[in-house]
Amino acid sequence: MPRPTRVTVHAPATSANLGPGYDSLGMALSLYNEFEVRVRDDARTTVHVEGEGAGEVPLDERHLVVRSLREAFDRVGEKAPGVDLVCVNRVPHSRGLGSSSTAIVGGITVAAALLGRTGPDGGPDRDWIYQVAADLEGHPDNVAPCVYGGYTVAYREGQEWGAVSGAVDPRILPVVCVPDWRLSTERARSLLPENVPHADAAFNAGRAALMTAAVRGHPRGLYAATRDRLHESYRAPAMPLSVDLVSELREHENLPAVVSGAGPTVLVLCSVTEGDADTESPEIARQLGSIRGRAGKDWDVRPLHVEPAGVWTPSPHP
Amino acid sequence: MPRPTRVTVHAPATSANLGPGYDSLGMALSLYNEFEVRVRDDARTTVHVEGEGAGEVPLDERHLVVRSLREAFDRVGEKAPGVDLVCVNRVPHSRGLGSSSTAIVGGITVAAALLGRTGPDGGPDRDWIYQVAADLEGHPDNVAPCVYGGYTVAYREGQEWGAVSGAVDPRILPVVCVPDWRLSTERARSLLPENVPHADAAFNAGRAALMTAAVRGHPRGLYAATRDRLHESYRAPAMPLSVDLVSELREHENLPAVVSGAGPTVLVLCSVTEGDADTESPEIARQLGSIRGRAGKDWDVRPLHVEPAGVWTPSPHP
Repeated sequence: MPRPTRVTVHAPATSANLGPGYDSLGMALSLYNEFEVRVRDDARTTVHVEGEGAGEVPLDERHLVVRSLREAFDRVGEKAPGVDLVCVNRVPHSRGLGSSSTAIVGGITVAAALLGRTGPDGGPDRDWIYQVAADLEGHPDNVAPCVYGGYTVAYREGQEWGAVSGAVDPRILPVVCVPDWRLSTERARSLLPENVPHADAAFNAGRAALMTAAVRGHPRGLYAATRDRLHESYRAPAMPLSVDLVSELREHENLPAVVSGAGPTVLVLCSVTEGDADTESPEIARQLGSIRGRAGKDWDVRPLHVEPAGVWTPSPHP
Repeated sequence: MPRPTRVTVHAPATSANLGPGYDSLGMALSLYNEFEVRVRDDARTTVHVEGEGAGEVPLDERHLVVRSLREAFDRVGEKAPGVDLVCVNRVPHSRGLGSSSTAIVGGITVAAALLGRTGPDGGPDRDWIYQVAADLEGHPDNVAPCVYGGYTVAYREGQEWGAVSGAVDPRILPVVCVPDWRLSTERARSLLPENVPHADAAFNAGRAALMTAAVRGHPRGLYAATRDRLHESYRAPAMPLSVDLVSELREHENLPAVVSGAGPTVLVLCSVTEGDADTESPEIARQLGSIRGRAGKDWDVRPLHVEPAGVWTPSPHP
């Protein structure tokens, strides 16, 4: 079968470090970066970016999608071709929504398609993409939901990255509050302490176990399940407004709000008592009203959906 | 309706501190203590104990079942009657199998029956029993599975104890290895450090989240899910043989073994790739053979089942 020469990939935004699940728990969201790659006849690379990040990222082989694509080719001992890359970006940069994971997973998914590495369903080989992507990113909690979709528990066992992905209860609707300021993951990481009280560690373990139960069929447990003692409060100096918004939403509105990833975006896991959660539901509308009221004008409050299946490629063009 | 004057309660053994879930995760096992209580006309109390603990526990109102029954009456401002209590104990004492939780939950369940406090299913009011029992025990991870059965995530939120209980995947079969030596929970607790590395705390949170997913439908993840960095290694000096057995079973037999509760019992979550796990299955027979081979003569290796529904009372006698 001839390899494709043109591939389009849709890679979803993700919310990681979910509540108590620092470096492990994540969720894929219905907000996508779209990468279109055409293989060139020569070794040159061109990059065109529209939307988020346009004018800010390097437009050559240093672009993260291209670097990731090349890394994936390196892994299998093949030389990557020159490509023309067009990015249509909708995931805000440096906001804690996994935009760099979309680029890493996107580039590797393009490589999988160009290399003809397919999984059991005939689509791109997600298990391979995940291993390469987690190696590149260095932590698995954004790339796992980006690759597999849904709610994911990601970990490292021996030399392998592991992940369990599962559907999110349809009564849950994720809402992101995106500010127009940014935070670097490195700065956020630098604020974490070397050691923490044993009681806090045990606390987070219990709540993380609860998180899996809450997301998968027990949304009433979400409020208790989203409590954290390992990262949010330590990072407050880097994002006081985010931590304030989380506190207000939790304490005054009784909503399960968390910092998304390394911040500064705030994620609220809204839910309905029965049926499917959508913005037409009076319960959700009321919760959205509360969130907008607390957030004010400085935050872009967006109801989303859970992306159930992760990165996807429309049928590749031959 | 006249209150019953005679109540029998079956309270299951439990395995708590499950792997990464220190103080939060637990499982109910098909091994029961049976408590029969008859209300007396006077204020006297008699206690008769058969089986485990016979000859070792006080045979008057200091007996833990009687104390718990009285506490439960106190809670509702009623005076507890004198009782004749007969205990038929099958759960070994001080082995990390929740024998004291059976007594606490048992006594409170007797009280619920005597007081006519029923839950929505007409049986004893489990939510009330759980609140009272967790208050008495001081930590919820044994009493939650004892009350509700199955796999439980227990926590405290504000002034209330919370618990989510769920069925355990039928492909999983719990096997306990019970030694004939004992360990006090107090001694085991005293070995835990004040602080732990942040990395270990994050590790345990991820694995605890994975544990819920593994137990509820992804048994292949059990091995990774049962890793712990918060209690087992710290307690090794108090139970070197238990920790050695866990290591041997994990490293040489690839079995998800953990210390049960505060030890010294070792729990192995055996599993089959499909169908229901029972001792007739060749896969389970092989795993049992491996466990017996590693454990040798000093351990009583017992395959059990998960108790799905928790403490129960045969119809009370009027």
